[in-house]
Amino acid sequence: MSDLAPFEFRIHSRDGRARTARFATPHGTVQTPMFMPVGTQGSVKGISATELLEIKSQMILGNTYHLMLRPGAEMVAAHGGLPGFTAYPGPFLTDSGGFQVMSLGHMRKITEEGVIFKSHLDGSPIHLTPERSIEVQQLLGADVMMAFDECPPFPAEERYIKASLERTVRWLERCLTFKTRDDQALFAIVQGGIYPNLRQQSLDATLPFGTPGFAIGGLAVGESKEEMFPAVAFTAQRLPENKPRYLMGVGHPEDLVAGIALGVDMFDCVYPTRTGRFGYALTDDGRINMNSAAPRQQLIPIDADCDCYACTHHTRAYLAHLVKAEEMLAPRLLSLHNLRYLHRLVERARAAIEVGQFQAWATEWGERYFKRPS
Amino acid sequence: MSDLAPFEFRIHSRDGRARTARFATPHGTVQTPMFMPVGTQGSVKGISATELLEIKSQMILGNTYHLMLRPGAEMVAAHGGLPGFTAYPGPFLTDSGGFQVMSLGHMRKITEEGVIFKSHLDGSPIHLTPERSIEVQQLLGADVMMAFDECPPFPAEERYIKASLERTVRWLERCLTFKTRDDQALFAIVQGGIYPNLRQQSLDATLPFGTPGFAIGGLAVGESKEEMFPAVAFTAQRLPENKPRYLMGVGHPEDLVAGIALGVDMFDCVYPTRTGRFGYALTDDGRINMNSAAPRQQLIPIDADCDCYACTHHTRAYLAHLVKAEEMLAPRLLSLHNLRYLHRLVERARAAIEVGQFQAWATEWGERYFKRPS
Ligand SMILES: [Zn+2]
Ligand SMILES: [Zn+2]
Repeated sequence: MSDLAPFEFRIHSRDGRARTARFATPHGTVQTPMFMPVGTQGSVKGISATELLEIKSQMILGNTYHLMLRPGAEMVAAHGGLPGFTAYPGPFLTDSGGFQVMSLGHMRKITEEGVIFKSHLDGSPIHLTPERSIEVQQLLGADVMMAFDECPPFPAEERYIKASLERTVRWLERCLTFKTRDDQALFAIVQGGIYPNLRQQSLDATLPFGTPGFAIGGLAVGESKEEMFPAVAFTAQRLPENKPRYLMGVGHPEDLVAGIALGVDMFDCVYPTRTGRFGYALTDDGRINMNSAAPRQQLIPIDADCDCYACTHHTRAYLAHLVKAEEMLAPRLLSLHNLRYLHRLVERARAAIEVGQFQAWATEWGERYFKRPS
Repeated sequence: MSDLAPFEFRIHSRDGRARTARFATPHGTVQTPMFMPVGTQGSVKGISATELLEIKSQMILGNTYHLMLRPGAEMVAAHGGLPGFTAYPGPFLTDSGGFQVMSLGHMRKITEEGVIFKSHLDGSPIHLTPERSIEVQQLLGADVMMAFDECPPFPAEERYIKASLERTVRWLERCLTFKTRDDQALFAIVQGGIYPNLRQQSLDATLPFGTPGFAIGGLAVGESKEEMFPAVAFTAQRLPENKPRYLMGVGHPEDLVAGIALGVDMFDCVYPTRTGRFGYALTDDGRINMNSAAPRQQLIPIDADCDCYACTHHTRAYLAHLVKAEEMLAPRLLSLHNLRYLHRLVERARAAIEVGQFQAWATEWGERYFKRPS
């Protein structure tokens, strides 16, 4: 690990546009492509810090918006940042708060200065600016911070997206100016919606800042996958080779495989834990509805190849019983399995890339996954 | 362990009426006094089988009523019984279903034959008899089964309690006649409410059956502690020395200490997990309300002496944040701590008995515990 400079991203192998790499952070070097579990409020829902290590999570996402409202960034800082607060000793990434202000804040008003909104918890008025976002993210202490951006809703007018991405560039500059800690990397976010000309404009204005990583933002906000992936492909191709590329908010299994094929290195999504809470289990044969009748009779694990606690200890019949009986252990164990499934998925993708077989592996995986509709 | 015969209960030391002992079961020898976590529907709420081992649980209680309705005793048997079904490899105890039929079943009718009731899940009519209870408990495969008894509500007329305890003795005989598996012990239950004359009558009729253990039933059903403990004292004193004594449904910390002083060996209760789900943490200084303002500012563990995962990894501030944020990890970690607290409490009681200091230890513990009202 010590052979990498801080925040160095060193590519190990390439296969088409897909690549494997190592990315060095103060809390450890991670292997990409990787999927990041989401710990919105300082907890990946239902999962302990030790379990995150056991299922080989590499980096956990924390939400600036949620944590600044509760318990407050200062309380997290009093614990020495997110690793001390959550007891997860590995790397963290925090978002800027921008996306969630747009989706959760009430009566928000966006100006050049920043955003004014009412807390969804108690209605109190809160200002979030590029400077305040960085101040909070420095208190949270994640290894990777995200620039404060505006993420337009979908659909939005081209004119609005253009004005918004230009403001996002000015906000990026303010974030970088305000940032003081050098043990935290700041990633810029490329916007532009699903329009190639706007993506190009955002790339032209953003890449010169030379941040240690770049995110592909403004997607997975309601557009179709036929609209999303061309935008991912266009952007990923034009991002620097030697920097990590992070596709924000994407985490369905098929989207990870497709994103990796397009050269994406980092993903995050609440999908595996949320679908687990709804009683679904991810497998190579598609998503199993544990609320249905069949699993209640099956004395086999969810996935015989999975090394997670649920699969090595329990039958589908037991887990389906827990779902039916509304036992808390059900969402816990299904979330754990689903997270491990996505981690295993990217591990298998990495292995296929290493031996130049990514295309064949991805095709075979997809054929099996989509054989049964979910 | 191999020095004990199956279901032998060998006393190691005595201090007043309190005693420590070992009790041999097919799934391992346990040390008493002990507290048994309740796994109502095949899961101790929110806690994994591995965690039960980590916090040094010794025997888990399963509820016959719940498991026969869902998933059905045959499904548990298809897993090789409760250890295979739940993945907890240690000893289990199952209740007879009687108590929960009385409290949960709808439109129940009690006859000499047994109980007819409507399932609280789907209203279907179900017969539960001494024979059916043993049949189900043999399918569940617990190391210790409980005799099918009638547990009268509180308050009940003396005449009713007398008729009920007489029927309970006849049902005990039917249970023992029906029982076929010799790798499962059947414990008889002494009834009689809070009336010494009825307790004596139940003892006189029950003890001759010579079962490998005896429960003190019909208590903790609504009577005051001033009514309950004299009945416990009266009964425990008259039970055989060389058999385990099980006080059913009791599990507040102070009741464990008081019960141990009176010579009780086994306890069970949903209290530690239920109060954990409500946001309370048990400590030697009383119960902490994690919903209150103070813990949110405290950068110390719930209990610095506790070796549970929550106390060795997290601050009160973090756990109180999880409670406030309604994160699933909160009830999980508080339940884990509370179970470990009760296990540590009986471990400390055992250590005090071993050195003849139980009275002094119990007094000191009680003075500290009740210093702050909960
Ligand atoms: Zn699994
Ligand atoms: Zn603890």
